Amino acid sequence: MQSFADVQALVFDVFGTVVDWRRGVAREAGAFLARHAPGVEPSAFADAWRRRYSPAMEEVRSGRRPFTRLDVLHRENLEAVLPQFGIDAAGVPPAELDALNLAWHRLDPWPDSIPGLARLKRRFIIAPLSNGNIRLMLDMAKRAGLPWDAILGAEVAQAYKPTPEAYLRTAEVLMLKPAELCLVAAHNGDLAAAQRCGLRTAFIPRAAEHGPDQATDLRAEGEWDVVAADMEDLAERLGL
Amino acid sequence: MQSFADVQALVFDVFGTVVDWRRGVAREAGAFLARHAPGVEPSAFADAWRRRYSPAMEEVRSGRRPFTRLDVLHRENLEAVLPQFGIDAAGVPPAELDALNLAWHRLDPWPDSIPGLARLKRRFIIAPLSNGNIRLMLDMAKRAGLPWDAILGAEVAQAYKPTPEAYLRTAEVLMLKPAELCLVAAHNGDLAAAQRCGLRTAFIPRAAEHGPDQATDLRAEGEWDVVAADMEDLAERLGL
Repeated sequence: MQSFADVQALVFDVFGTVVDWRRGVAREAGAFLARHAPGVEPSAFADAWRRRYSPAMEEVRSGRRPFTRLDVLHRENLEAVLPQFGIDAAGVPPAELDALNLAWHRLDPWPDSIPGLARLKRRFIIAPLSNGNIRLMLDMAKRAGLPWDAILGAEVAQAYKPTPEAYLRTAEVLMLKPAELCLVAAHNGDLAAAQRCGLRTAFIPRAAEHGPDQATDLRAEGEWDVVAADMEDLAERLGL
Repeated sequence: MQSFADVQALVFDVFGTVVDWRRGVAREAGAFLARHAPGVEPSAFADAWRRRYSPAMEEVRSGRRPFTRLDVLHRENLEAVLPQFGIDAAGVPPAELDALNLAWHRLDPWPDSIPGLARLKRRFIIAPLSNGNIRLMLDMAKRAGLPWDAILGAEVAQAYKPTPEAYLRTAEVLMLKPAELCLVAAHNGDLAAAQRCGLRTAFIPRAAEHGPDQATDLRAEGEWDVVAADMEDLAERLGL
């Protein structure tokens, strides 16, 4: 591990790294599916909804669409995914879809996330650098007790990861050089983009993020500054 | 008091309302003045530095200057104010001025602020809506233990109060209608601007903000939704 003496802030990927989106969305979708598509496996629904996440952001990243917050993209993706499960979106009251869309605001942290963050916060500024929008991250933190020092990320930067501006503008509002910032993520691609911008990198594998058949991001695939088993192990490795 | 049933977030003016900038800046400037201008009263220096605050922002509000974060304006104002006290700015190492500029990051809350905010946080989203930049507000909160749910304000909105966009963009990132947001401030002018944007308003007088001779903002001068003696009294009045 390279010295972390210059690092002043740890910024975190959130979906998958800090919280378990798959189980959370499946739990929130359960009652909805029981009403509208009995027999559909809630985690399959969560996976299908999530599969539309990156393509939707790609419209923004490519410049084809102005910056649009994730809650809006999630809501559009929700309508788009319903027919895949035999649900007619037009037949569901919009307020019911709005409510289901808030599933992403109510995700639970992995068991090590909060104790790990509490330790890391003693020495570092800690903040999300998520593609989730400010209100989403705020609601999630307030419900779960995530002890962020600030809510940063795509909406503050007005750019979605892995666009360089998402990392560089986050460093800029923190008034830090990129090398004074470390991204903590469970995704090698996110870390690679951050590293190209000059950020330090910490990998935490989350082998259950995508359920039992996960085949990606099971191990570090780059020269990351730190590789830790979980958030508490990261605190340990950083001397906290 | 009008019903607060629809209010979901309380946003706060910070300098003066939540923290005592005058005593904090005077304390931080004390050693600097002892070295460079013995005999100068630190609170007079704080007042003079602060007097340049609004004119500097006015350059941005008027459109004559692109949005520039407050730390930069404070630093410029610091250099500009030194000659008033017989200090030659060119004779002071820039690093010493940079360090003194951080005085604004190290202000103490009024005694009622933290207990009041902790109670208000149980029911409301709480966030600064300050002209201070993100890093300034973050450092202040981390040092003092201010329990914000997010750091909002001028830098997120890219507009300085009392420009309407400062209030309206804050509502927008919180995904709230203006009337679902209440500004808490010790300054009638700030509340008047927020009210014109449709926000709810709460006034807390801070009769010691400007020292013993304060003549402004000693009492409510508008039809504010709530007038409270301090932050704990505000919690009380909102049923918390």
